[in-house]
Amino acid sequence: MQDAIRLSLDEVHDTAKSLLSVQGFSEAHAAAIARTVTAAERDECRHHGLFRISFYVNSLKAGHASPDAEPDVSDLAPSVVRVDAKRGFSPLALEYGYAPLIERAKAQGIAALAINNALNVAALWPEVEHLAEAGLVAFAFVSAAPYVAPAGGTKPLFGTNPMAFSWPRSGGHPLVFDQASSASARGEIQIRLRDGKALEDGWAIGPDGRPTTDPRAALAGAQLPFGGAKGSSIALMVELLAGPLVGDLLSFESGEDDKAGTGAPCGGELIIAIDPARCLVGGDRQAQLAHGERLFARILEQEGTRLPSDRRYRARERTAREGVLVPRSLFDSLNELRAGASSVRLQAYEGDHVLRDDAA
Amino acid sequence: MQDAIRLSLDEVHDTAKSLLSVQGFSEAHAAAIARTVTAAERDECRHHGLFRISFYVNSLKAGHASPDAEPDVSDLAPSVVRVDAKRGFSPLALEYGYAPLIERAKAQGIAALAINNALNVAALWPEVEHLAEAGLVAFAFVSAAPYVAPAGGTKPLFGTNPMAFSWPRSGGHPLVFDQASSASARGEIQIRLRDGKALEDGWAIGPDGRPTTDPRAALAGAQLPFGGAKGSSIALMVELLAGPLVGDLLSFESGEDDKAGTGAPCGGELIIAIDPARCLVGGDRQAQLAHGERLFARILEQEGTRLPSDRRYRARERTAREGVLVPRSLFDSLNELRAGASSVRLQAYEGDHVLRDDAA
Repeated sequence: MQDAIRLSLDEVHDTAKSLLSVQGFSEAHAAAIARTVTAAERDECRHHGLFRISFYVNSLKAGHASPDAEPDVSDLAPSVVRVDAKRGFSPLALEYGYAPLIERAKAQGIAALAINNALNVAALWPEVEHLAEAGLVAFAFVSAAPYVAPAGGTKPLFGTNPMAFSWPRSGGHPLVFDQASSASARGEIQIRLRDGKALEDGWAIGPDGRPTTDPRAALAGAQLPFGGAKGSSIALMVELLAGPLVGDLLSFESGEDDKAGTGAPCGGELIIAIDPARCLVGGDRQAQLAHGERLFARILEQEGTRLPSDRRYRARERTAREGVLVPRSLFDSLNELRAGASSVRLQAYEGDHVLRDDAA
Repeated sequence: MQDAIRLSLDEVHDTAKSLLSVQGFSEAHAAAIARTVTAAERDECRHHGLFRISFYVNSLKAGHASPDAEPDVSDLAPSVVRVDAKRGFSPLALEYGYAPLIERAKAQGIAALAINNALNVAALWPEVEHLAEAGLVAFAFVSAAPYVAPAGGTKPLFGTNPMAFSWPRSGGHPLVFDQASSASARGEIQIRLRDGKALEDGWAIGPDGRPTTDPRAALAGAQLPFGGAKGSSIALMVELLAGPLVGDLLSFESGEDDKAGTGAPCGGELIIAIDPARCLVGGDRQAQLAHGERLFARILEQEGTRLPSDRRYRARERTAREGVLVPRSLFDSLNELRAGASSVRLQAYEGDHVLRDDAA
């Protein structure tokens, strides 16, 4: 690995938070974003860690994001809570929504949280993991910038549209998955462009609508859904849930809304939370959890398998002891921002200092 | 096509209902199953139509299914309804659950229906379509007999585990998808075995755990999830939702429970219904529906695309006018059953009379 700095997770958090404050975010937003960024570094999800700071700062500088909007919480129905993020970033909106969502889910058995007008550049697993830590089963759906063609089509329309799901476990981290409905991450295509490597079959089509393994053609054309028509259905579902259902933008509308090209889409998110103890006769929570464990044991007894969140949790153990390695060029950029520098490279995503590390 | 009989949809329904009554089903079960079978024939989902009658009858004869259980409806929480099917088939349990689920979803904004102890050999789209016709957005999840290996693994564990989703449309049929989390239908593998054709890459592994395109090896080995690890996550989610969440069996447990090998798994189902008007500020339902239509228009303006349920709805128009063609050998078998014959070929799935028609 290139020259790198080892930071403790506290140092990651403090760096992020003070930098965001200096750049103009309110105390509340800086703290919430810093927690989200730190959680990503902790779990070695580097694409959503410190390098993502540039998205937050650039969106602010472009006038695309609010620095200080206080999320507004209201009830739309006995089991539906709404948080209006007012063009602030999603981490603070989520923090406002958790308590009422958990309360409603436990009181009613199932509840939903509709988030509106939120800029979202974070991963989706933190929210479902948080809800599972509170004992709930949870789903989250969010749309994104329009990069993905519908099955059979040739032009970008859907976002990479992740959905996340969590299941609580006794005495351990929740089972969580958070997966895009595109066949590959956009960042992975950008990495292969830089490295001169071909894409896998099924990832993308070029501007001519034909399958391509050329990263440049893929970025000019469209990504493809994972698993063909079935993944396309999932992407379509996510569009509807995070957009029209909650009265917010579709991915192509978010793309049009992002006039400054910040890459930080503004839109909606739907979270559904279920209290599992309210879904079975007798409500024997321990037996219910043990039942889930029997499935997990059957999966893991097959060589070659793993549970979806295992890699993150192993990283979490390691980084708690060892901290994280941050490429020196990224660390230097962060320090410039912390000292008040007014700009940062817009597409840090494509910056060598990040990608070299991520691809390692 | 081979020799076939044209039946009106009323004739399909009457044939199914009287046959099921003669074979011992209660009036209520015979009627509910006949409606489900007729809806499948109407939409040209032949695998779930008349030929599926053998699963219903054989499960009854084997003592695996109850002929007359009256579903029991109860509340588990303000937004969670439960129907205990008491080992009856699912169509009647669903009919008992619809009204309270719709009522709760409209009152609370979101609600869930947990079905237990139901034998399920039907498709999953009828329930979500029904809920969408009532104005709701709906999800359904059901597990099935264990045929699918988890990603990275080599042995069958998950069911083909379909999930279904629906979105209401103004002035038209709802948008619906109903898709297995396996890469292919099991029936399609059986058809290729019969026809001596190879499978597609990615559908299955043999008993040795290696990828295979040989149908016989696939049936002795394991099917694969669609879309690799992402489809496997969906299958895992469905297992948890239709099993431990609602206090019912996992697919491998349903397999063990089906001692007579009827192929009709007994287990749980989870349905989630959302009232879309309660999920957005102002509740402007017409604007919300129009917003969904803008997405559908953007999809359909791309040549080569279609909406997930279009094929079924086109068939529905056609069969309302023309009725359906039933292979004579299947028609003759049904008439024998209707006259009181005590047995029917167990695996009608693999019977020539059905497959020849389906593959046409």
